[in-house]
Amino acid sequence: MTEPGTLSSVPTPSKEARSRDTILREAARLATVEGIEGLSIARLAAAVGLSKSGLFAHFRSKEELQLATIETADRIFRAEVIDPALQAPPGIARVRALCDEFLAHLERDVFPGGCFFASVVAEIDTHPGPVHDRALALVADWFGQLETAAREAQAEGSVKSDEDATQIAFELDAHLLFANAQYVAGGDPATLDRARRAIERLLNSIAPSG
Amino acid sequence: MTEPGTLSSVPTPSKEARSRDTILREAARLATVEGIEGLSIARLAAAVGLSKSGLFAHFRSKEELQLATIETADRIFRAEVIDPALQAPPGIARVRALCDEFLAHLERDVFPGGCFFASVVAEIDTHPGPVHDRALALVADWFGQLETAAREAQAEGSVKSDEDATQIAFELDAHLLFANAQYVAGGDPATLDRARRAIERLLNSIAPSG
Repeated sequence: MTEPGTLSSVPTPSKEARSRDTILREAARLATVEGIEGLSIARLAAAVGLSKSGLFAHFRSKEELQLATIETADRIFRAEVIDPALQAPPGIARVRALCDEFLAHLERDVFPGGCFFASVVAEIDTHPGPVHDRALALVADWFGQLETAAREAQAEGSVKSDEDATQIAFELDAHLLFANAQYVAGGDPATLDRARRAIERLLNSIAPSG
Repeated sequence: MTEPGTLSSVPTPSKEARSRDTILREAARLATVEGIEGLSIARLAAAVGLSKSGLFAHFRSKEELQLATIETADRIFRAEVIDPALQAPPGIARVRALCDEFLAHLERDVFPGGCFFASVVAEIDTHPGPVHDRALALVADWFGQLETAAREAQAEGSVKSDEDATQIAFELDAHLLFANAQYVAGGDPATLDRARRAIERLLNSIAPSG
């Protein structure tokens, strides 16, 4: 424990010295509630306790801030969902792990507005530009993870040979993102269990013995 | 054909006399692109060619405009999706018809930003208030249509007796709304076919013979 009396003599770290990373993590959380279009420098400055000019030192435009926020959200998503799932061996175990980790990150409320990318894409789907393109690229990257895992499960023999890995990824992602939308709207973890059941049904129906 | 020379002598109908319905139909379309929060009286006035004061004669507040827009979107959705589907007899035929009509209304681009309610709910899911509540109630109403149809299909004997109608509605809606999100993002009708295939797979797997 620090002695209370010494606190005032310890130099307070300059507010302006707060790391870019801290600001961007707050921006990523805020964007899932206020929208990435609503992510104004003024609002973010208030949320992290910086002056607008302090924040402008880090990001010269709203678009630069939005793009940096997306990269930070991507790093968080990789650390919370993709990296743990890739610990599972390639095959049906990894298909399950990707789905489980996705649903678990919703349940842990990693972002207050649910899946960061679903939130951003729903907001800006009809607004073309670099922010839109980058968000869609990362959504496609996630879809690619599911598709690769489904293909590896098929190679392993856990999925019927006449199934289409892209179609399987589509069906898995549908359940994950619908659970996300329902969970964000109602906050009821039962919707995450519905997705788990839907995914089990799907994996059973595509198994060679199914 | 009207004789060109007579045009200027025909009294132009008062712009202010344009019906509330015409304004609200434009508002419903616009809300799926700009967002229902972005549905300002100024922007809508420009879109329908009315003065701001002309529009204020119809709607005294942004919230009144937003709520009226949701009711109009609901009427459009009923006319385009629900009423045609309810022509099918209760049972598995109606389950299929609800899904088919939903996907067909996406393919016809009834709303430029896809499903009106998915668009509004994704935008305002974390913004409590009457607009949020009414949009969620209509989303729940749609879910109820799917659930009732699934229950009727089970009563008819087209669905295994140990299946849960709510779970079936969840899985159907997941495919419909994921197809919506993908179609809006990419504009590719192939995503609608993926949803059709996913729904066929599901209906096969819950059929008593499956």
